[in-house]
Amino acid sequence: MQMHIAVIPGDGIGPEITQAAKMVLDKIASVFGHEIAYTEVCAGGAAIDRFGDPLPAEELKKCQSADSVLLGAVGGPKWDSAPRRPEDALLALRKALGLYANLRPALLTPCLAQASPLKQELVQNGLDILVVRELTGGIYFGKRGKDAVSAFDVEQYSDFEIERIARRAFLSARGRKGCVVSVDKANVLESSKLWRSIVSRVQQEEFPDVALSHMYVDNAAMQIATNPSQFDVIVTTNMFGDILSDLTSVITGSIGLLPSASLGDSSPGMYEPIHGSAPDIAGENKANPIATILSCAMMLKLDFGLASEAEAIERAVNGVLEDGWRTFDIKDNDKPYIGTAEMGRLIADCI
Amino acid sequence: MQMHIAVIPGDGIGPEITQAAKMVLDKIASVFGHEIAYTEVCAGGAAIDRFGDPLPAEELKKCQSADSVLLGAVGGPKWDSAPRRPEDALLALRKALGLYANLRPALLTPCLAQASPLKQELVQNGLDILVVRELTGGIYFGKRGKDAVSAFDVEQYSDFEIERIARRAFLSARGRKGCVVSVDKANVLESSKLWRSIVSRVQQEEFPDVALSHMYVDNAAMQIATNPSQFDVIVTTNMFGDILSDLTSVITGSIGLLPSASLGDSSPGMYEPIHGSAPDIAGENKANPIATILSCAMMLKLDFGLASEAEAIERAVNGVLEDGWRTFDIKDNDKPYIGTAEMGRLIADCI
Ligand SMILES: CC(C)[C@H](C(=O)O)[C@@H](O)C(=O)O
Ligand SMILES: CC(C)[C@H](C(=O)O)[C@@H](O)C(=O)O
Repeated sequence: MQMHIAVIPGDGIGPEITQAAKMVLDKIASVFGHEIAYTEVCAGGAAIDRFGDPLPAEELKKCQSADSVLLGAVGGPKWDSAPRRPEDALLALRKALGLYANLRPALLTPCLAQASPLKQELVQNGLDILVVRELTGGIYFGKRGKDAVSAFDVEQYSDFEIERIARRAFLSARGRKGCVVSVDKANVLESSKLWRSIVSRVQQEEFPDVALSHMYVDNAAMQIATNPSQFDVIVTTNMFGDILSDLTSVITGSIGLLPSASLGDSSPGMYEPIHGSAPDIAGENKANPIATILSCAMMLKLDFGLASEAEAIERAVNGVLEDGWRTFDIKDNDKPYIGTAEMGRLIADCI
Repeated sequence: MQMHIAVIPGDGIGPEITQAAKMVLDKIASVFGHEIAYTEVCAGGAAIDRFGDPLPAEELKKCQSADSVLLGAVGGPKWDSAPRRPEDALLALRKALGLYANLRPALLTPCLAQASPLKQELVQNGLDILVVRELTGGIYFGKRGKDAVSAFDVEQYSDFEIERIARRAFLSARGRKGCVVSVDKANVLESSKLWRSIVSRVQQEEFPDVALSHMYVDNAAMQIATNPSQFDVIVTTNMFGDILSDLTSVITGSIGLLPSASLGDSSPGMYEPIHGSAPDIAGENKANPIATILSCAMMLKLDFGLASEAEAIERAVNGVLEDGWRTFDIKDNDKPYIGTAEMGRLIADCI
């Protein structure tokens, strides 16, 4: 297969981790007989420095004409008081590419269970939660404004927006344990009442085989922290998903390992690690590339339909971890650890 | 002192826990020479059953003319499909009494550290966090509506609303470790940008002695779950506060123990346990009254300025817990436990 991948290295550790991920993708290509062409895209803080714009039209176009987009990370304190923010590139990419579904798998493998902030008894059987966050609607993209004495943002959802994200969640659940928890604040918000009724209708009409329950967002935060193994798929709005997907990730104890996919209906998907640009360790060959590498596995499966290739990557990552190889962020107290490039090479070698 | 307290028993375990709390208040009155008059108020599901309205005007008036309000809990599955919801009473009381500041102390006493879902190493030195949640503004009370194909809610904050809640947080911090973390989503929301700038200005102009930092809400959720001991006072909006105050509470492991105060500038404050109405154990003398009893301590201190009386309650609660007395929810595996009324009596006896 011919694959055209736009790569946004971005800021901080972004260039190193995308570099390591490309090693793995290249190995996949050679083992499975594919051809990959990469187009480098400048976005985020790097693009502010170079063009004064976090996502110039030319760079966006490169993403739009690729089959898929791999993103390292954007942002850093360097641009804290810049007139434009690196993160604006993320929001612009999501909107321009129509990436309305953010899939955030939070997997805790028993071999890394001790890294979780939660007690062993809560995570000893591992965790396997998929948070499906709506990504192009809600208060992130609603009307906003200010006057002399106040400011406002509008949380708004249409039937259509809720239907399509609900479908995505139910479809994902079918390939998993078949249980969806929809999170809202329907005891207060009008938009949440609509959310709840549309999600219920989509389940009844199209996914009677999937189990659905509803949870208020405050309760969901408590349940994730105290009894995470009850969850299979969580579907929620952009704003609640921002909070709950990060909370769900962090309780696995290894945010350096977690990938994400942002998908539209037809456009290229965007794949990125859930961690940030970690400017404090940038350029030190210290970052963990596994989250980015696992994001490539999601890409192969979801954008290219290459399930065996995706599994080959996941197997290689697990093998390397089970053999005890660790990067700095997940090392055991005084055990040795390896660098970003070495981890990438080891995983590529295992494929 | 003469005290006139409106008591809203509410639903589920509400009547039992407020009953136990009154035993403690009565003991305080007799030991310290005060006089307490109680007015019982019907609100929540009980009021829906009796009047078809979760907060009839007459009942609200009883609260408005009291010095202080004690609330048990409202809500339950019984009213899930009722046209009016018990929880509407809460929102109506907050608005009518002008209770814009919700103070939620999350205290983890080392003797109950094993109840926390977090690893011992994260909580072994105890936790003492105060979440200050804005309670009468934001998306809870903004404009909302729907049309044929969508629904919306407006998150709006004025300078004035932000100033007064910020002051409350800074004042609270002065009596504590002097550190405030303000939580917002200023990288996306216009109302959060205003929030951040006003909180910063109030600190600079009026509280230069208090340390202030800012955190995005997604990061705050992660920090609370992984490194809670970094926090002293957290101040945030109504919606973010709903989520983060519950998350902060639950990591202490003992939501049955945590009180709350909702305060305005002059009106009576409202004091209530943070837990719900627990209809599953209602009427069984099984509920833990400690959160309600500690809410009375907050009331004595904040509404009546009776700091010694408040401390006497807190000392009695700690004494009883240290002596090993437990209610069902916090008992050690197969150790014995006592009922709601017994716990109330024991604590009263210790004063
Ligand atoms: C950087 C920020 C705008 C972004 C978001 O809130 O969506 C980030 O937190 C994320 O979750 O990808
Ligand atoms: C019942 C609900 C309306 C309420 C809220 O969201 O404020 C509750 O969750 C709380 O925190 O007191």
